[in-house]
Amino acid sequence: MTAIDPAPGAALARRLFADLAERTADPPGVTRKAYGEGERIAFDLAAEAAAGQGAERRFDAAGNQYLTIPGVDRERALVIGSHLDSVPHGGNYDGAAGVIAGLALQACLAQAGRTPPVDVTVACLRAEESCWFPHSYIGSKTALGVLDPAVLDDARRSDTGRSLAWHMAEAGFDPDAVRTGTPGLEADRVVAYLEPHIEQAPALVSAGTPIGLVTGIRGSFRYREMVCHGEYAHSGAMPRNLRHDAAVASAELIVALDDLWARLDKEGRDLSITFGQVGTDPAVHSFSKVAGEVRLCLDVRSIEPETLDHVETELARMVAEIEQARGVRFTLGPRSGSTPAPMAEPLRALLGEAATRQGIETLAMPSGAGHDAATFALAGIPAGMLFIRNTHGSHNPDEAMDMADFDRAVAILAAVMDAPGEAWAGLRG
Amino acid sequence: MTAIDPAPGAALARRLFADLAERTADPPGVTRKAYGEGERIAFDLAAEAAAGQGAERRFDAAGNQYLTIPGVDRERALVIGSHLDSVPHGGNYDGAAGVIAGLALQACLAQAGRTPPVDVTVACLRAEESCWFPHSYIGSKTALGVLDPAVLDDARRSDTGRSLAWHMAEAGFDPDAVRTGTPGLEADRVVAYLEPHIEQAPALVSAGTPIGLVTGIRGSFRYREMVCHGEYAHSGAMPRNLRHDAAVASAELIVALDDLWARLDKEGRDLSITFGQVGTDPAVHSFSKVAGEVRLCLDVRSIEPETLDHVETELARMVAEIEQARGVRFTLGPRSGSTPAPMAEPLRALLGEAATRQGIETLAMPSGAGHDAATFALAGIPAGMLFIRNTHGSHNPDEAMDMADFDRAVAILAAVMDAPGEAWAGLRG
Repeated sequence: MTAIDPAPGAALARRLFADLAERTADPPGVTRKAYGEGERIAFDLAAEAAAGQGAERRFDAAGNQYLTIPGVDRERALVIGSHLDSVPHGGNYDGAAGVIAGLALQACLAQAGRTPPVDVTVACLRAEESCWFPHSYIGSKTALGVLDPAVLDDARRSDTGRSLAWHMAEAGFDPDAVRTGTPGLEADRVVAYLEPHIEQAPALVSAGTPIGLVTGIRGSFRYREMVCHGEYAHSGAMPRNLRHDAAVASAELIVALDDLWARLDKEGRDLSITFGQVGTDPAVHSFSKVAGEVRLCLDVRSIEPETLDHVETELARMVAEIEQARGVRFTLGPRSGSTPAPMAEPLRALLGEAATRQGIETLAMPSGAGHDAATFALAGIPAGMLFIRNTHGSHNPDEAMDMADFDRAVAILAAVMDAPGEAWAGLRG
Repeated sequence: MTAIDPAPGAALARRLFADLAERTADPPGVTRKAYGEGERIAFDLAAEAAAGQGAERRFDAAGNQYLTIPGVDRERALVIGSHLDSVPHGGNYDGAAGVIAGLALQACLAQAGRTPPVDVTVACLRAEESCWFPHSYIGSKTALGVLDPAVLDDARRSDTGRSLAWHMAEAGFDPDAVRTGTPGLEADRVVAYLEPHIEQAPALVSAGTPIGLVTGIRGSFRYREMVCHGEYAHSGAMPRNLRHDAAVASAELIVALDDLWARLDKEGRDLSITFGQVGTDPAVHSFSKVAGEVRLCLDVRSIEPETLDHVETELARMVAEIEQARGVRFTLGPRSGSTPAPMAEPLRALLGEAATRQGIETLAMPSGAGHDAATFALAGIPAGMLFIRNTHGSHNPDEAMDMADFDRAVAILAAVMDAPGEAWAGLRG
């Protein structure tokens, strides 16, 4: 068997990244709303590219898109995928790199005239960036038929206020079939799910290593509609002891949680705590009024379930203390979250060996961010992730992946195609 | 000399407060923008009421309005006034109570057929609420010809972005005359400036006393365009030690200044520290992004110049420390502020004796908020303030003054008219 020529994949990927950046531009950066115009454009670009390799195109009831090159064994499939939505004014690589890596692999296989051992399906998943719908992994959950049906009606898109079901139907799909749990993929036919993704922290850059092999994905809990209710008052006239200052109370909570994180970090616990949105009400606030209300979004993540529990217990204690001391009231609002998910060890070994055969250095590391691979892992499907070195993090317009590192990820995928049959058989073991 | 009948003033005041609330309503509360529609309506209502008592109406170059009932001595004037603008969605009494108290006094004098010893001028001052133009006491400074001409071009209204000069001209007045220092009032003809005002804190309510006699007015410094610059990053993926989190850094500054206030408060120093507006950028922030920028408005007030200096020194130290620890950068932006201003002791004695003659209890107290009386005091004109008991503070729609307390303030003003000639002569020391 001759080595697969990487050139056709590299050319396709460069063209796709450029087209995608141009057609979903929303300066600064790109915006691809879940079930919105940008996501649709990305789906169509992926489908056109796959059509060029003779791939079959299929949608499921939720609108996830599957682009399949037939394998020798058509009863089994290797699924390579990721999401194609982005945060508002996000970067071009988050999500898209995984789909495009799969498409690049398909192009390499097709140009080499190689039939893979099993079907190779590129999964374009919906609605992963939970800034749009406040629920994790909607695309992979609908792909596997495990989405809680209540989410269809309860999760509302942040910009429109309309339900997930409404947006699904509006895009031409079938929320009623999703409601009854109709899967897009038959789980027991999926040999493995692989998700290449840019690294969203600078660990690979720091280490000088191009590719990360992910050991597990953090779970989370979030309160996106937290409000601190105080009392508006004249900034100069209201004495200290009679104030109910929502800005000071909120700042105390932010600092107290940050102190907790500092302590747990020293103990070696895995954790991140973020208040990404904080603010007084522009319709009512004034520089000369004590703040009567502050809205906050809290995002807490860890790969350790016990650490998540501990932070949530401490949060409740801190809130009660600050309420008592400041005469304010916090309402946490709806809670959302996800369960920590380990990646499959045998699959990671397979990826590691493929990288070694290609002379590519890798680093084992946890994923701080959530990814659809978590849903596959929690459904019992062997799941793996390749992180691609990337500077400036993600969820911002400055994310910057070197295309040479992207090509390395595709080379590892191609080398996995050459793994011996018993390695594949062992994955579902 | 018979006592002045309070009934005509009480009736006029009730009608004016009702008209004003109705015609400048902007639920919740009222909005009377400086040099805007609401302020204009208030000026016209005041002028119509004064016309009913035969008062002369006059505008100065800046658009301050003077409504004068002639006195025995037409070379001297007692000026009673306040401002008629409000914060957005503010209450109906802040500012307006002072003007309406003056009009009520004029109505009582006119109905009693009494010629006061000197002219009694009700001054309707412009632009006191510095949420509109970021500069203190524009109305009283233009009335006395002491406004820094640069403010005409540099101070821009928060909603329109247009300069003070533009708004002055647009309302039909003469910014060029203001620029050359043309005063609206001749300072050496003003016997005294009196400003009745609702109390903006609950001190009088707590003490069960209807009227406060103000000892001095707090000065201030403000940074309304403070920005904490951090770095946007993925909330789950960016490790703690590499973050530049503007939300945590800003919260640290808020808590540190609040701690400083708590210490100085215990030492008996006079102070207030307020962050009335705080927020991440809604156009860019996301619950899943570390905050890359937070905007803050800081308002610090004290009657003690040395306390203001101390807090400003500490602010610089805190900012430097947090920048160092968090890898963020604060820009404080333009500074504005005002000088602490003592009220005239002999005038306060005159007001106190008038209250005693009327059987009205009073309490000596500092003013936590700034008022135009500060400008008159700093210009060497004897200035005094009466605080009227009021619940729920001010700068909010819930401010609530009992009309019986308002009537007590008018009764004190009327009693001052009966003070012996030597008391008046002594005011200009």
